[in-house]
Amino acid sequence: MGKTGRMTVRTPDPNPGWLSDHDLDETRNRVPMLYVEAVPVRVDPDGLVAEVGLLLRGSHTGEITRSFVSGRVMHGERVRDALMRHLEKDLGPTAFPVLPVSTVPFAVTEYFPYPGASQFFDARQHAVALAYVVPVSGECQPRQDALELTWLTPAEAATDAVAAEMEGGRGALLRQALAHLGALPG
Amino acid sequence: MGKTGRMTVRTPDPNPGWLSDHDLDETRNRVPMLYVEAVPVRVDPDGLVAEVGLLLRGSHTGEITRSFVSGRVMHGERVRDALMRHLEKDLGPTAFPVLPVSTVPFAVTEYFPYPGASQFFDARQHAVALAYVVPVSGECQPRQDALELTWLTPAEAATDAVAAEMEGGRGALLRQALAHLGALPG
Amino acid sequence: MGKTGRMTVRTPDPNPGWLSDHDLDETRNRVPMLYVEAVPVRVDPDGLVAEVGLLLRGSHTGEITRSFVSGRVMHGERVRDALMRHLEKDLGPTAFPVLPVSTVPFAVTEYFPYPGASQFFDARQHAVALAYVVPVSGECQPRQDALELTWLTPAEAATDAVAAEMEGGRGALLRQALAHLGALPG
Amino acid sequence: MGKTGRMTVRTPDPNPGWLSDHDLDETRNRVPMLYVEAVPVRVDPDGLVAEVGLLLRGSHTGEITRSFVSGRVMHGERVRDALMRHLEKDLGPTAFPVLPVSTVPFAVTEYFPYPGASQFFDARQHAVALAYVVPVSGECQPRQDALELTWLTPAEAATDAVAAEMEGGRGALLRQALAHLGALPG
Repeated sequence: MGKTGRMTVRTPDPNPGWLSDHDLDETRNRVPMLYVEAVPVRVDPDGLVAEVGLLLRGSHTGEITRSFVSGRVMHGERVRDALMRHLEKDLGPTAFPVLPVSTVPFAVTEYFPYPGASQFFDARQHAVALAYVVPVSGECQPRQDALELTWLTPAEAATDAVAAEMEGGRGALLRQALAHLGALPG
Repeated sequence: MGKTGRMTVRTPDPNPGWLSDHDLDETRNRVPMLYVEAVPVRVDPDGLVAEVGLLLRGSHTGEITRSFVSGRVMHGERVRDALMRHLEKDLGPTAFPVLPVSTVPFAVTEYFPYPGASQFFDARQHAVALAYVVPVSGECQPRQDALELTWLTPAEAATDAVAAEMEGGRGALLRQALAHLGALPG
Repeated sequence: MGKTGRMTVRTPDPNPGWLSDHDLDETRNRVPMLYVEAVPVRVDPDGLVAEVGLLLRGSHTGEITRSFVSGRVMHGERVRDALMRHLEKDLGPTAFPVLPVSTVPFAVTEYFPYPGASQFFDARQHAVALAYVVPVSGECQPRQDALELTWLTPAEAATDAVAAEMEGGRGALLRQALAHLGALPG
Repeated sequence: MGKTGRMTVRTPDPNPGWLSDHDLDETRNRVPMLYVEAVPVRVDPDGLVAEVGLLLRGSHTGEITRSFVSGRVMHGERVRDALMRHLEKDLGPTAFPVLPVSTVPFAVTEYFPYPGASQFFDARQHAVALAYVVPVSGECQPRQDALELTWLTPAEAATDAVAAEMEGGRGALLRQALAHLGALPG
């Protein structure tokens, strides 16, 4: 720090895991990116799933598509904390999500930037997502790029029409979630 | 015991868990019956499921339906031993099934003798089945009441046509198995 | 119904799954009895387990031992309903348990009436229990034969001293629960 | 390349996911690194675990420690393929591992380069590992940096002495694996 007072001391990074666009792009070409993904549900008092929540949002390709709560795990961040952060970002501060007691996911979803390697596709990157079902008991107020949160019954959510609207092949993930919950029609 | 007093000491029951028809019927009206259920699969060297095996058999109602390896756990029998016993009974001695390392099932299936309580139905009884996916590497020779074992790709197995042929609502269980394997189409 | 008033019409059984002592004993000698078992936990807002609840109770052999919420699934009863019923019976009406969204247990525990067949022992019967972790958010008021509910940290719960006090070998089940939660010390 | 030297055609990278030391270090400071981890086991014909395999190896800090099969998932690589690659690298070509039919791990292990954030520690990086139990039926010939593979019974593996020798806190992971297998002593 010189006498001119021009501050050069770096204050601690308030978002240590945050990356510049350049660094993020570079990193995406080097390693698989770790994501968490959450399927919000409303449950009956006895734990049976009554409704599944889908976010309606503009995808990075400009289409309007349906998706789940989703986002990357940052450097230094615990999986639980990433899950909570993205739930609050996508559902608002009054959703009151119930986080799972175990970090073992119901599915590990592998997104590749080209078709064929798996059922799942992400034009931006190779990403591996840990997917959880998360009951919410409060009011959801989608923020940021999500336009709307729609609640569907398991039977509605399992239709081909809904699957076709899901981003990046997540129709298969939605059905995996319903199957995990014992709520997939036969 | 006759008048000579010659002891009629009971020899140990060679099948201690076996029940007479009367006792079995009586018991079925008293408690849920514990079953194991196995979905046989053929896997690629990297563990990806290539084919799912379905048994074609005459159901207890006389129809020809598709089903899985299935049977009850007997008194005094371990879950693993019941699973192995029914695999050998339904697939023959040269199927070489690979039993799961954990007894935690991929699904708990609840069959009721009336519709509505769950997706699953068994006219004979209230049964609760622990369901496992079991890779087999050998030759399967269905025995007893199974007429035939059919191998289907995951895509074929996921169709509504196959679901409609499954006994007691097991189309939903088949889809749960495919979802668990990451092989359910989106 | 004639004017003599001799009622022969059977009123519906208010507890259809309930069995007389004789019928229960007889059934216990015929088939494995299906149980549910619940490990109550208190969790932090981010889902990390802070405390595990153990019931202190008189066992059927007269000793004072520690155990979990536990009880059998009755004929015609769904697994979820049995779980809720036993949670309310053992923890009282204001415990506010959060039932799991999936009925897949974290462990399948096999109790035999003789040692050696498994780690778990139940002098009365061959029982197979589906075990769940259940977060509770309210006030627990143990009822019936439970004398007291004790809350222990995961580190306290994992000690050999606690394991030695657990009924029927449930020290192993307690450690399985802690492992499932990622809370078992290394 | 001719004397004009204007060759600019890039041959396909034979190891597209491979990174230079510089790029790897840089990436490790930006995002969590995705790993797979495998606990090799020998099983009885009925699926019960008889022995657990631990690798004895020189850690990156120079100590001799025990560990599991472990390594990162490369860019563009499927989780299954990474698992198979590291199994072959660490156990040799004749181990004949049986890959799990589902990519859902029994544990998600979070390693941080500083203590306190979790039970697990890795001085080099923030890593998140998907952990699997993998039965092997052939001959294991540890290669590369592994000095030796030791087979322990579940009871031996669960001791504090073994836990203390495990690298990066993996004693807890070993016990999680044993718990998952129903082989953790009470």
